[in-house]
Amino acid sequence: MAKHAVLKAQILSEAVPYIQEYHDKIVVVKYGGNAMVNEVLIDNVINDVCLMNLVGIKVVLVHGGGPEISNALKRMHKESKFINGLRYTDEETIDIVQEVLAGKVNKNLVKRIHTHGNKAVGICGIDNMLLKAKKVDADVDLGYVGEIEDVNAEILVDLLDQGYIPVVASVGMDEEGHSYNINADTAAAAIASALKAENLVIVSDIPGLLRDREDEDSLIEAVTVDDVMELTKEGIIAGGMIPKVKCIVDALEEGIKKAVIIDGRIPHAILIEMFSNEGSGTMFTK
Amino acid sequence: MAKHAVLKAQILSEAVPYIQEYHDKIVVVKYGGNAMVNEVLIDNVINDVCLMNLVGIKVVLVHGGGPEISNALKRMHKESKFINGLRYTDEETIDIVQEVLAGKVNKNLVKRIHTHGNKAVGICGIDNMLLKAKKVDADVDLGYVGEIEDVNAEILVDLLDQGYIPVVASVGMDEEGHSYNINADTAAAAIASALKAENLVIVSDIPGLLRDREDEDSLIEAVTVDDVMELTKEGIIAGGMIPKVKCIVDALEEGIKKAVIIDGRIPHAILIEMFSNEGSGTMFTK
Amino acid sequence: MAKHAVLKAQILSEAVPYIQEYHDKIVVVKYGGNAMVNEVLIDNVINDVCLMNLVGIKVVLVHGGGPEISNALKRMHKESKFINGLRYTDEETIDIVQEVLAGKVNKNLVKRIHTHGNKAVGICGIDNMLLKAKKVDADVDLGYVGEIEDVNAEILVDLLDQGYIPVVASVGMDEEGHSYNINADTAAAAIASALKAENLVIVSDIPGLLRDREDEDSLIEAVTVDDVMELTKEGIIAGGMIPKVKCIVDALEEGIKKAVIIDGRIPHAILIEMFSNEGSGTMFTK
Amino acid sequence: MAKHAVLKAQILSEAVPYIQEYHDKIVVVKYGGNAMVNEVLIDNVINDVCLMNLVGIKVVLVHGGGPEISNALKRMHKESKFINGLRYTDEETIDIVQEVLAGKVNKNLVKRIHTHGNKAVGICGIDNMLLKAKKVDADVDLGYVGEIEDVNAEILVDLLDQGYIPVVASVGMDEEGHSYNINADTAAAAIASALKAENLVIVSDIPGLLRDREDEDSLIEAVTVDDVMELTKEGIIAGGMIPKVKCIVDALEEGIKKAVIIDGRIPHAILIEMFSNEGSGTMFTK
Amino acid sequence: MAKHAVLKAQILSEAVPYIQEYHDKIVVVKYGGNAMVNEVLIDNVINDVCLMNLVGIKVVLVHGGGPEISNALKRMHKESKFINGLRYTDEETIDIVQEVLAGKVNKNLVKRIHTHGNKAVGICGIDNMLLKAKKVDADVDLGYVGEIEDVNAEILVDLLDQGYIPVVASVGMDEEGHSYNINADTAAAAIASALKAENLVIVSDIPGLLRDREDEDSLIEAVTVDDVMELTKEGIIAGGMIPKVKCIVDALEEGIKKAVIIDGRIPHAILIEMFSNEGSGTMFTK
Amino acid sequence: MAKHAVLKAQILSEAVPYIQEYHDKIVVVKYGGNAMVNEVLIDNVINDVCLMNLVGIKVVLVHGGGPEISNALKRMHKESKFINGLRYTDEETIDIVQEVLAGKVNKNLVKRIHTHGNKAVGICGIDNMLLKAKKVDADVDLGYVGEIEDVNAEILVDLLDQGYIPVVASVGMDEEGHSYNINADTAAAAIASALKAENLVIVSDIPGLLRDREDEDSLIEAVTVDDVMELTKEGIIAGGMIPKVKCIVDALEEGIKKAVIIDGRIPHAILIEMFSNEGSGTMFTK
Repeated sequence: MAKHAVLKAQILSEAVPYIQEYHDKIVVVKYGGNAMVNEVLIDNVINDVCLMNLVGIKVVLVHGGGPEISNALKRMHKESKFINGLRYTDEETIDIVQEVLAGKVNKNLVKRIHTHGNKAVGICGIDNMLLKAKKVDADVDLGYVGEIEDVNAEILVDLLDQGYIPVVASVGMDEEGHSYNINADTAAAAIASALKAENLVIVSDIPGLLRDREDEDSLIEAVTVDDVMELTKEGIIAGGMIPKVKCIVDALEEGIKKAVIIDGRIPHAILIEMFSNEGSGTMFTK
Repeated sequence: MAKHAVLKAQILSEAVPYIQEYHDKIVVVKYGGNAMVNEVLIDNVINDVCLMNLVGIKVVLVHGGGPEISNALKRMHKESKFINGLRYTDEETIDIVQEVLAGKVNKNLVKRIHTHGNKAVGICGIDNMLLKAKKVDADVDLGYVGEIEDVNAEILVDLLDQGYIPVVASVGMDEEGHSYNINADTAAAAIASALKAENLVIVSDIPGLLRDREDEDSLIEAVTVDDVMELTKEGIIAGGMIPKVKCIVDALEEGIKKAVIIDGRIPHAILIEMFSNEGSGTMFTK
Repeated sequence: MAKHAVLKAQILSEAVPYIQEYHDKIVVVKYGGNAMVNEVLIDNVINDVCLMNLVGIKVVLVHGGGPEISNALKRMHKESKFINGLRYTDEETIDIVQEVLAGKVNKNLVKRIHTHGNKAVGICGIDNMLLKAKKVDADVDLGYVGEIEDVNAEILVDLLDQGYIPVVASVGMDEEGHSYNINADTAAAAIASALKAENLVIVSDIPGLLRDREDEDSLIEAVTVDDVMELTKEGIIAGGMIPKVKCIVDALEEGIKKAVIIDGRIPHAILIEMFSNEGSGTMFTK
Repeated sequence: MAKHAVLKAQILSEAVPYIQEYHDKIVVVKYGGNAMVNEVLIDNVINDVCLMNLVGIKVVLVHGGGPEISNALKRMHKESKFINGLRYTDEETIDIVQEVLAGKVNKNLVKRIHTHGNKAVGICGIDNMLLKAKKVDADVDLGYVGEIEDVNAEILVDLLDQGYIPVVASVGMDEEGHSYNINADTAAAAIASALKAENLVIVSDIPGLLRDREDEDSLIEAVTVDDVMELTKEGIIAGGMIPKVKCIVDALEEGIKKAVIIDGRIPHAILIEMFSNEGSGTMFTK
Repeated sequence: MAKHAVLKAQILSEAVPYIQEYHDKIVVVKYGGNAMVNEVLIDNVINDVCLMNLVGIKVVLVHGGGPEISNALKRMHKESKFINGLRYTDEETIDIVQEVLAGKVNKNLVKRIHTHGNKAVGICGIDNMLLKAKKVDADVDLGYVGEIEDVNAEILVDLLDQGYIPVVASVGMDEEGHSYNINADTAAAAIASALKAENLVIVSDIPGLLRDREDEDSLIEAVTVDDVMELTKEGIIAGGMIPKVKCIVDALEEGIKKAVIIDGRIPHAILIEMFSNEGSGTMFTK
Repeated sequence: MAKHAVLKAQILSEAVPYIQEYHDKIVVVKYGGNAMVNEVLIDNVINDVCLMNLVGIKVVLVHGGGPEISNALKRMHKESKFINGLRYTDEETIDIVQEVLAGKVNKNLVKRIHTHGNKAVGICGIDNMLLKAKKVDADVDLGYVGEIEDVNAEILVDLLDQGYIPVVASVGMDEEGHSYNINADTAAAAIASALKAENLVIVSDIPGLLRDREDEDSLIEAVTVDDVMELTKEGIIAGGMIPKVKCIVDALEEGIKKAVIIDGRIPHAILIEMFSNEGSGTMFTK
């Protein structure tokens, strides 16, 4: 018998306590942005999600669009209007966002799950009004950029109960029927809260929260809600990390057990986080 | 009390036997093409579908894309290649078809159902591999134009059992993960067969099958499978009507009870077909 | 296509929001007295009840006996003894009341529902001890005239869950096994309370609560519990209306949403009340 | 401790194997006629039925009216018309039959079961169209005397599954809504067939099938379907026994396991039949 | 018909109200010690337990080992070490206790239930960690004598729901995987508490609680929790009766309805207690 | 991040297709004999069984007693009587076998599963009469050595459906209540047949079927039912391997998919067999 097989069995068997920890629990995985570019990495993420599903974890995959949206806008020769440096999402743009997120990225993730042999259903925040949204409350009008008013998780519960992996595109709608572009981190955190998830796993393209953004070795491995304010004051949580951490803190306060930001560029980063005692990236707890 | 209310109650009460006929039965409604252009007509169709759902009919709404796809291609300045007069669907085109059908048209129909107060979930043939497809078997290579190999209706049964209205975009996939553009009539007929539907209602923009295409008064009200060959020989079933009738005949032979082609330009044509003894359009039975 | 069909579809489609309001909710309809005399009106009431059942409303039909009891007594050459103007219900009389209500009127309503194509089961307050009764607490002994001590709604819940329309004759029993004649309004109100019904619809042979009993145009369309005392002082609620209103007030205070007294002589008065925004008769709310 | 208690425990414990034999099986008990006159005997029958229900037997109690109908007709000064010695059931008579059977006898049996502490629901062949009937096929018109066309046992299955004892009055209906007087033996046998009952117990006021009708000691304890023709030829099965035996034979041929005719005048004859190895009366098997 | 059959039916019918009292309720029977020696008595107990199961009582049989353990130790020529007069349970002894209780006594009781025709499953406190135990808290180390830390009644609920009679050997385990000998009275009382049992029946080899241990006629028939302290002070509850009564009091305080100590030497003492108004032994209530 | 974690994740992810193959399928693992001696190996086997349970496989663990029985007999100074070289199982011996198998080995396996965090219930062939046995049909009387007459798998189905791992000691019983020692391979194969298992995994202390018993490198990796006769003629299947192979062939013919004999001395041999494409030991298929 090959040594490989023995090692494999050995390692599989070491995973037992970690699998038990998450058995029948809900885990929300957010996946998007640049972590979505590399074909091999996508495949790793999908494989990890399928494994989680097979070992009895109820996993929801929430995604944004990453570079696909920019590409589509470029393809359309659509020029973007910027207000105070923020992109204005006009009616034509939200249409394209919805098409790309719910029609392309979403279904392509579903396809990949099928080719791994698991069952997935792709929906977005419009389906059964999963993500009820409204215009983001900002000083300037940014068009159809939305914030979440309410999560109606019924369809997710139904799909999870029947063994499907729900794949969710971060598009929301209001009662008048307008679509909104929702930040995918925020959507994932709100869904995790609504489902009282055990773990919110944000797959990113950075190692996690770094004390020194230039130095990947300065990773902060564990952060509590109390640490957040201090780290923000110190400027360690800054820029794009601020809203990411904010929605994690909100979700922790509404009842999820923990959240992690992990580096999607590391092969099988999700499995390492879930099924070993080494973890990876930065863990947030209450 | 206003006369209107009395008349209304009178009419509601007359619908009882028709509602009983369809109670707890499955009806597949195919909607698309030019019937989808007029805002008021769309709203009528959605209202009819919601009413069917409320009176206990398990209704599946299958749609194509109609003019939206052409508009998107135009918007992209994408030129079409034609082979023997048939449009060649290259990789970029199937991408756009999928985005528009599954990301835009599909979700917009879902939104309309929500604004009528019912629960809908929008999926396409990719979700849970509902429509397993392959390249259409033709003399020339038409690219990603697909025909259905297998219908896996599990997700539809699950959604119907939980009271949702499934809205299905006619995009399929093969096991390698390629998407295919599927004719929406064919998709609806195949789904109706797989679900052993009571009725397949094709909402069109013509009055039905006409003996003389120029004369709307020459409507043929009822056709059996046996009549079809004769009518084809006579040239009455011709052109685009041939594939439409063919998939209806297939579905009748695989166990659906009846199919109708109705005129979506008539307000509430579906309700007239379902809940009165006048019917509308052309009815096909075995 | 006939204009009639188009109008019909139009009207059906307008009913959608009203149907949604009551979907899966419990409605108790009380029917009896003189409203029960006219064959056409009975048929209208039954048709309305069937429609409610078909559109997903859980409907319970409670009935008294109306003129049938008097006819039976007459037929038996049974002379009634009156005490202070109230009929004394001796043992022979309660036997006849039970026979007529539970054996004749009840089963005949069940039959009518069957001939409309719906499923009904006829029971009375004796079955599974649905209505536990005792002698009415009055100054004089009126024999087997009962008041309700307890409603055991289990059998109704079971029948409703299986899609039957329960038809309930207003006869109760005590633990010793004596039957009691129960006022049908009171029985319906008590059952509505026990089931936390959405609506208690009392089908009467008057237009509703009239400010001036001689003037049918003086209808009071809406009454709150607070209004009742005032209206009673003013003598507007008087006579036979007092107990009717009292049991409605009790039911509202025990959790039903609303109650209406409607005029059973108007064709489809129930449908007008339930499925239009015009309502009919007098509505009572808390 | 009293000797009585010890004896009681001893005897209870001996019943175990007999209870096991019938656990979760369906037994149809037919009760009626003169066996219904004596108060103590009625109570014994009801007690036996309740015990059967408590030890896990699914018991259906079918009854006719016995002398109650004659009394009611007498009370009404209704004179009966006889044709060839058979009573003609005109419209007024069927009305009275229905009232007495479904309104009085039925509900009074239900009451007795309640006072023994069990749960019963009284229905008749009209409820959910349990007994679909038509005019009996005879040389002369006997009016509303019916024979069974079809048994729709759904309501019985539903009630049994929820632990109720269904009590069934032998009145049927046709699709036009006419009621029919059904022979209670026939009704019980048809219901037993439809439910594939383990045992059909006909509680009578005779010891069983007697070789010599004048000699109660000439009881025939066991009869097979094959014996029946012989016994009929010999004149041992004669008169009113012929239809009784005929419906038993029909039920045996449609799948019930056995039928017994027992003597309701013997205290607890049902228990003796069911829970001892002595049996009682005449047993019919295939 | 034999007189015996009539008497039997009479007696069976008298049991109805007592059966109703316990229908669908949980009763825990503890059986062990010297009451377990006599073959006929064992059979009586098993018969009684089976009858309880048949009449719809959810019965759990908890047992100790009685003389079997001593016999096994003797057979092994194992000498016992005594500390302050209490037997020290070393590792070898607990092994033998577990083997005898869970492997012999338990399975033999299961066999007897099968030969009576009922369905039983034999488990012990180790299965699904039903009885989580720890070393008994005593002044001296008694080895593997355990006390119960927690009852995980899930497996009992599952077995009862599927109609099995669970037979439980009073062996517990701790989280490290050590087995413990648990007093069977304590185990039964703890299980009864966890299941909120209606009745805890301790089958003993004494008549119950005696005012004068030498005089079997001095039986105290009923004791409340409040009486216990007084009786203990008076020395009437003394010796081995103290822990027995203590665990009964605990169970009463945690929600069981009543407990009885009955004399297993009386044939069918359980049936007498459960199904007659004479009771037997001493009843404890709150 | 340590390399180990990355490798681990890599390997876990490779297991996905193998896990999918067995998801929701039944696998019967037979474990016993000398493979049961080494503490580390036992722990490996239990760990593998727990992992199988966690990834959604319905696993039944059947065990014999191995050296424990001999030890117990020795401990008891019990001398064995041999007939034609076969051990005679007298009444005292079967008692000890039952105690050791069902009371010690069985519960100790259950304990180990609990300490790994999974839920197990230990039963034997006596519980719910899982293994109905009779004296083995041999030329000489071997006492209580049994063969299986019937498998009543109901209790296994119930336990599996509720997520428990059933652990089964190979003791059977006949209807008179005698216990029988059943060969554990036979018991496992019969249970696998009754459950229509996907795989019967016999954990042994040899590498599998060897062409040359002295040469572990002569392993035969795959055998079909047709090969068996040839291999037996050639003397390759011989001695103790004959009955082992016979019961495998029987199980294959009654519907199990495959069986494997694997070497329990190899760490995680079960996982290697189940979750890699290398397999291990000898595979038998039809």
